[in-house]
Amino acid sequence: MANSASGDSMTERIVRVLETFTSERTVQTTAEIGRRAELPSSSAHRIVDELVRAGLLERDEDHRIRLGLRLWELALRGSTALRLRQAALPHMESVQAAVREHTQLAVLEQDEALFLERLSHPQAGANITRVAGRLPLHASSSGLVLLAHAPLALRERVLAGPLRALARETITDAAVLRRRIADVRREGFVVAPGSIEQVSTGVAVPIRDAGEVVAALSVVLPRETPPGPALAALKQAASAIEAALRADRR
Amino acid sequence: MANSASGDSMTERIVRVLETFTSERTVQTTAEIGRRAELPSSSAHRIVDELVRAGLLERDEDHRIRLGLRLWELALRGSTALRLRQAALPHMESVQAAVREHTQLAVLEQDEALFLERLSHPQAGANITRVAGRLPLHASSSGLVLLAHAPLALRERVLAGPLRALARETITDAAVLRRRIADVRREGFVVAPGSIEQVSTGVAVPIRDAGEVVAALSVVLPRETPPGPALAALKQAASAIEAALRADRR
Repeated sequence: MANSASGDSMTERIVRVLETFTSERTVQTTAEIGRRAELPSSSAHRIVDELVRAGLLERDEDHRIRLGLRLWELALRGSTALRLRQAALPHMESVQAAVREHTQLAVLEQDEALFLERLSHPQAGANITRVAGRLPLHASSSGLVLLAHAPLALRERVLAGPLRALARETITDAAVLRRRIADVRREGFVVAPGSIEQVSTGVAVPIRDAGEVVAALSVVLPRETPPGPALAALKQAASAIEAALRADRR
Repeated sequence: MANSASGDSMTERIVRVLETFTSERTVQTTAEIGRRAELPSSSAHRIVDELVRAGLLERDEDHRIRLGLRLWELALRGSTALRLRQAALPHMESVQAAVREHTQLAVLEQDEALFLERLSHPQAGANITRVAGRLPLHASSSGLVLLAHAPLALRERVLAGPLRALARETITDAAVLRRRIADVRREGFVVAPGSIEQVSTGVAVPIRDAGEVVAALSVVLPRETPPGPALAALKQAASAIEAALRADRR
């Protein structure tokens, strides 16, 4: 009933339509959406019309389409990510007050680090991450923390590669990555200079909930900044977030 | 093709499924989802299965269903709300540093105030608002700011009532509300003691982008706190957010 002639479900088609929107492309025509979602024009128009009626998309005065606030509201309202983020935010602000660069919260999602939150000082240095953006596990400091505590099958899948270089110092050798992961598990933190951008160092620690690592808390520093004070602020914040998550469970 | 026997589209059914998740109900069985979404059991199972395959829902080890991070990611990645929120967040932190209670960002959505962000001091007083939560326009300080600058048709629709009382001091008289709206437009801010909770005062100011009011920035104070310093911090932050939005347009 809900399947098209080509066999993909309506759900898949709706997701393909939503996926055409990115941080660089927040407004599109229905024709552009159809082309990017690889949908026949008639299907694209019908799905976009339905999504506009449901409020998941919005049509502006020029008939261009953008994501609707209703989608954001539905996604956040019942979300466990929101619980983690709300528990973390006050303590991310404490890190930010001490470090005044970028402070970020990431979770493991489909073999990548997905960034739930980022606080940035207006005068802070370079930082490629975005809220709702992703980075590879082997390259980012947050990713290395998440990878080190990921299920074995996922770790082996990532170690099997490919390990793409994002910068000259990204770890691209599986044996080196394996040792690095063991270090992270033993030491409880990551300092990763130049692995994403040559001018920056990522510093990350794990956050545990009910005994499991559920997120990585990180800062991005200019390369010349010693990581010690940031690491101390991160460890203190991670403990406070873990306490907030425990209190929230009761 | 995409319509069920009862005439509702697949999109509507998917939205009904997503709507069953709330901040109080983040995990459900498929049977509960079907009942709450008023879907036949077979449809509920098929739609939930499709949404799980697409990552918009997730199934835990007990086969219970929760919202997927993929939904959150899709909703935020291409969102104009995210642009507003990212522009506002550093300046909300400045308000928070000065006021140390609750600082909130709200937009107009379907005749209500929808809260995009909330920062709360760990020792702050009472506050009913939640991120991705809503409050009536006539009752909340943010709502009064948004209502005062809303299109005329929306203002008249809200004034025509009903004006439900959330607390003893909520404005429920249309003539009083009309005068209050005129005050807000003239004065450029709202101080609303006891309109949501007897123990709290809401203070809100508008945020403009390209000449239009696009959001309300507010704090919630304990009733006994004089609102002057919070209002000064809000006005300063609103100017800074407006400058950030202007810079972002270039």
